[in-house]
Amino acid sequence: MTSISNVPSAPKVVALSGGVGGARFAHGLSRALPGESLTVIVNTGDDFEHWGLSISPDLDTVMYTLSDLGDEARGWGLEGETFRALEMMKRYGADTWFGLGDADLATHLTRTEALRRGETLTSVTARLARACGISTRILPMSDGPCRTMLDTVEHGTLPFQQWFVKHRAPAVRAIAFDGDPAAAPGVIEAIDAADFVLIGPSNPYVSVDPIATRPGVRTALSKKTVVAVSPILGGRAVKGPLGEMIPALRGEPASAAAIAHHYGALLSAMVVEKGDEGELADLPKLSVHATDTLMKSRADALRLAREVLAFAEGLGAR
Amino acid sequence: MTSISNVPSAPKVVALSGGVGGARFAHGLSRALPGESLTVIVNTGDDFEHWGLSISPDLDTVMYTLSDLGDEARGWGLEGETFRALEMMKRYGADTWFGLGDADLATHLTRTEALRRGETLTSVTARLARACGISTRILPMSDGPCRTMLDTVEHGTLPFQQWFVKHRAPAVRAIAFDGDPAAAPGVIEAIDAADFVLIGPSNPYVSVDPIATRPGVRTALSKKTVVAVSPILGGRAVKGPLGEMIPALRGEPASAAAIAHHYGALLSAMVVEKGDEGELADLPKLSVHATDTLMKSRADALRLAREVLAFAEGLGAR
Repeated sequence: MTSISNVPSAPKVVALSGGVGGARFAHGLSRALPGESLTVIVNTGDDFEHWGLSISPDLDTVMYTLSDLGDEARGWGLEGETFRALEMMKRYGADTWFGLGDADLATHLTRTEALRRGETLTSVTARLARACGISTRILPMSDGPCRTMLDTVEHGTLPFQQWFVKHRAPAVRAIAFDGDPAAAPGVIEAIDAADFVLIGPSNPYVSVDPIATRPGVRTALSKKTVVAVSPILGGRAVKGPLGEMIPALRGEPASAAAIAHHYGALLSAMVVEKGDEGELADLPKLSVHATDTLMKSRADALRLAREVLAFAEGLGAR
Repeated sequence: MTSISNVPSAPKVVALSGGVGGARFAHGLSRALPGESLTVIVNTGDDFEHWGLSISPDLDTVMYTLSDLGDEARGWGLEGETFRALEMMKRYGADTWFGLGDADLATHLTRTEALRRGETLTSVTARLARACGISTRILPMSDGPCRTMLDTVEHGTLPFQQWFVKHRAPAVRAIAFDGDPAAAPGVIEAIDAADFVLIGPSNPYVSVDPIATRPGVRTALSKKTVVAVSPILGGRAVKGPLGEMIPALRGEPASAAAIAHHYGALLSAMVVEKGDEGELADLPKLSVHATDTLMKSRADALRLAREVLAFAEGLGAR
């Protein structure tokens, strides 16, 4: 992997991402690689309409995170956000369980107006990201809708945001995707052109599966070295309901091994938290790298990204 | 006009209103009359789409003013408004010549979503006003679009907001209305039921004419005592481009008389600024009341409203 001038060139990398964890990891990758080397393919299974606006929570989290406009501590939304419109919406009796910030509204207004005009989600995403000063390519997984639906014990079937935000992630017994659109233009091509594919520490069920189940994506991934960063550390999820979803959906305890079992043959290697290596003893063919995987800061994300990149480069092509 | 219990009942009043001046006068009327006595019919010729939102500037000015949520000094928009979404829209390269505030966005989002669902402008206006605690009935002049178009020397034909806000009201040589929708439900009925109709100190060309030219409205008005408050004081407009429009469109100097000439047979009487009575000497059939007409505060508006109500009641039915 050397250019004509003998300067080592950067690998071509695709990262699959959901929201907070995946976005933080993508931030590290974006600082470790030149802009043209990295493509982040983002889950849009959480997308929904609210207040008449087209909201793409994971695309926004990735965009705000990569641009450093995001709230670093919270992991989503804009830094220093205000909620004046939300207060007024309360006065008008609107649904306010999903709290859109004032500056954030500009993103949704721009996207909604563009989609209504017939612009694709891919195109408006690129335009917004460029305006935020991002050189990394951010692709939605699809232009057409694919909605993650969660069958819950308590409330029946719920679309993602109602499940996650409105009802605070009640127990799930099954997950389905409503809609089976093609992968967005560039998704398959980016995977085909990649030296390897990295899966950030995102929820496999609701963040990665929607991407991986787009037609042609699994086949494209199967030809590549695919490395996942475990979202389970010491048997627990860093954030969110994954720790409860694994036993409910797989009938096994939450662990890095359960993540590996879920991805199955898709996976070439895994990066796990130091001390969790033992969990993967029953998967001798899986290459494993153990390190500090918790990303509390941008510096943590950059260090982890560099380590994962070095590990993946060492694995070679599948 | 007495009820069975011999307590004098309030007259039934209709006010026609544009933005700032008309809204201030309506505020005075709303404090001088019980809620069920007053109907404010509002110009929607300025309505337009911006950032994909349906904006009704005069309806909002009337609503914010009557609810005391508005910025009293500026006369439009919400008090203490912030502009975070606008800043973000600038980053996205959007048109930002019309500065929508953050809390204000909630009004446009609610209206836009309602209209897209098929709710009428009349219905969503009533809903918003109720949520703002307003008991006065606010009616848009029409549910269908009627767009005020200004033919300018410098920029050709412009829709109202582009003319007024984007290009700062350049010289006008003609005005036309694009669309001729029916008056909104309740408009003709409210005029028919009124004891008299008051026209606030609004621009006759771009605020009152759009209302008065709705089918059936002029006929309904012709049966009523109609009293206008002059928007021209001492030969000058309090606000806006009316002072230049009158000579350009009528070929006579700006004056209270020019306003009376414009309304013609529609008008029963006029309230003018003290000292302007002489201007109306050539209209001996027009009843005239002269007083302080400048409304710098809510107290001014209430005093003027009471005086105009007493004057109009004294005129009797047409």
